[in-house]
Amino acid sequence: MVPKNFVVDVHTHMYPPSYIKILETRSTIPIVRSFPHSSERRLILLESEVESLEKALKDPSTRPPGRPLSSQYTSLDQKIRFMDVHKIDISVISLANPWLDFLDADDAGAIGASVNEEFSNMCRQHHGRLFFFGTLPLTAPLETILASIKQLRDLKYCRGIILGTSGLGKGLDDPALLPILEAVAAAQFTIFLHPHYGLPNEVWGPRAEEYGHVLPLALGFPMETTIAVARMYLAGVFDKVPELRMLLAHSGGTLPFLAGRIESCILHDGLLSGKGKGAKSRRTIWDVLREQVYLDAVIYSEVGLKAATEASGGDRLMFGTDHPFFPPLVTGEEGLWESVSLNADAVAKTNEAGVGSAAATMGMNAIRVLNLVEQA
Amino acid sequence: MVPKNFVVDVHTHMYPPSYIKILETRSTIPIVRSFPHSSERRLILLESEVESLEKALKDPSTRPPGRPLSSQYTSLDQKIRFMDVHKIDISVISLANPWLDFLDADDAGAIGASVNEEFSNMCRQHHGRLFFFGTLPLTAPLETILASIKQLRDLKYCRGIILGTSGLGKGLDDPALLPILEAVAAAQFTIFLHPHYGLPNEVWGPRAEEYGHVLPLALGFPMETTIAVARMYLAGVFDKVPELRMLLAHSGGTLPFLAGRIESCILHDGLLSGKGKGAKSRRTIWDVLREQVYLDAVIYSEVGLKAATEASGGDRLMFGTDHPFFPPLVTGEEGLWESVSLNADAVAKTNEAGVGSAAATMGMNAIRVLNLVEQA
Repeated sequence: MVPKNFVVDVHTHMYPPSYIKILETRSTIPIVRSFPHSSERRLILLESEVESLEKALKDPSTRPPGRPLSSQYTSLDQKIRFMDVHKIDISVISLANPWLDFLDADDAGAIGASVNEEFSNMCRQHHGRLFFFGTLPLTAPLETILASIKQLRDLKYCRGIILGTSGLGKGLDDPALLPILEAVAAAQFTIFLHPHYGLPNEVWGPRAEEYGHVLPLALGFPMETTIAVARMYLAGVFDKVPELRMLLAHSGGTLPFLAGRIESCILHDGLLSGKGKGAKSRRTIWDVLREQVYLDAVIYSEVGLKAATEASGGDRLMFGTDHPFFPPLVTGEEGLWESVSLNADAVAKTNEAGVGSAAATMGMNAIRVLNLVEQA
Repeated sequence: MVPKNFVVDVHTHMYPPSYIKILETRSTIPIVRSFPHSSERRLILLESEVESLEKALKDPSTRPPGRPLSSQYTSLDQKIRFMDVHKIDISVISLANPWLDFLDADDAGAIGASVNEEFSNMCRQHHGRLFFFGTLPLTAPLETILASIKQLRDLKYCRGIILGTSGLGKGLDDPALLPILEAVAAAQFTIFLHPHYGLPNEVWGPRAEEYGHVLPLALGFPMETTIAVARMYLAGVFDKVPELRMLLAHSGGTLPFLAGRIESCILHDGLLSGKGKGAKSRRTIWDVLREQVYLDAVIYSEVGLKAATEASGGDRLMFGTDHPFFPPLVTGEEGLWESVSLNADAVAKTNEAGVGSAAATMGMNAIRVLNLVEQA
């Protein structure tokens, strides 16, 4: 008997209703609100949407910013239906960006505990089909953050932590973050590193509004992830926390493509070579990609997925959908999503080209690494 | 008789002595200057070096910013020696960044004409071994810029234009740039698109100085190129100027890796699909990569070079060295440069893996596309 090849989605988000309520009370991004002439509530997340939000508030005839807040974002039933339609056996759900990053220090701990509890309950309702990445209240005091990691250790379905790139506000190369990363690693939690902040708006130029969300999402997000990991690498974080394991969103941003250039720039930098960081004996970014990093397969092309697989190894890629983002605009949300098939097709083609294995990428790597199937 | 396979370097820069003289008179970046306790003059180019320049000017014990201005940057003899040592048959030399972008409108035309004449003379001294990409005085009035293109058409060894990403100051998606791009295309000049401005310093975080030039050079440069081309694509520039041909530095920045994500973001963007820009009939970024773009092979890894070759096609990759940047720090500048062998090795390995052809990438593509060998 051939064992079943599971399909696992490691990149799939939710906003629990309690979280949406918080966004509804806010007056700045991230925010959920209605606009005149538009029946649906809209979800406005990105710093690049500040201007269009201001315009829409002043002039109701303007196209409202953000995206429609469909039930796909909040409903557990929809998540399960989406999994069934796309033949996904197991999903590792996570709170979507910007997580708890914007909360007041006083509120963050309690809200975080409640959100993590909510994710845990969702998983319990669909035992065996759902696991989750927890969220840390990073604006709270250190002891609250560490207590949150302790809480997550006790939640049966938790398999890691979803983390943005701001850390405690100074990025992931901040030494003050080390005790947190150590506690996460000690809990054997994988960190799912996910972008949110993108790049400063000025880089998109004066015509950015004409291009919708394409530049901040298609380029800003993966570039943010790449910069965050490169800063961690240069600060020695992967050496300082050797048990640290990170799953990088969007196939590592652009790391697989730029790893060679990063290495060459280190080798040829007078300052770093003077500090011995250019030494041949040091662990290269390639070593980190192959030993401490996993990559999701959310890259929408065979070209990208092959590079990611060759950079990290076929045993380190994990399929994801990014649901409920990128819904089909024309065919409706109940059928097959093209954003899913683009990634599944890339996995199949990469497998046909002899790079990695479709079974491993589609689920078996996640099963093994995140320990998703109970031993008999 | 088997025809010789030429080795061609399409990415190789010079600062003619007259240009260095201009930099020596300046008080802000870009600048060439000496520092106490350091015999050599230093070349300070990057916006990310502003702070360390200020520090070094105040406190002479601080490590000076920039890089040593060795004769590699200015000497034609050194360029030829470098070519001989690395068995490079032909080099297509270009002025290094930031070109003429910082000049006053009144000076730019005359300085540009003189710099282009200087490059032309260098090529004449080594007939058959040297060609060049000219430089446009982009701060000058439109008629001066168009006159400069006309001048370059008359210079026998000119094969294209090296261009930064700022254009006339508003980026390459600026409609005011279209007449210039049309004139360049009409002259059958290839544009060599090269980064300089990187990303705003804030993205590198508070510890950036510890990491030398690694982040701005390894990540900022390729990200800048990617953003510039994506903006051109979204503005329809490649459709509006169908004869436009662009050689992208550093294997397209990160475009080969992110093209799938760009396409998916366009397909799933409510604003763009509403404008028909998400239509299936439109030319995708993949089409542009395969029809109007060439990529240099300056990516320092087999993983990246394979992705670049698969994205644009084996007939569109062109070897480059980035000389005189990234000199060896330990072994001296007269021998083999590791920054060159990293790229040459990547070409050989990519060829062995059956992706593209080493002969094509190492020179024959450049010979054909840039018309570098006179017909018998």
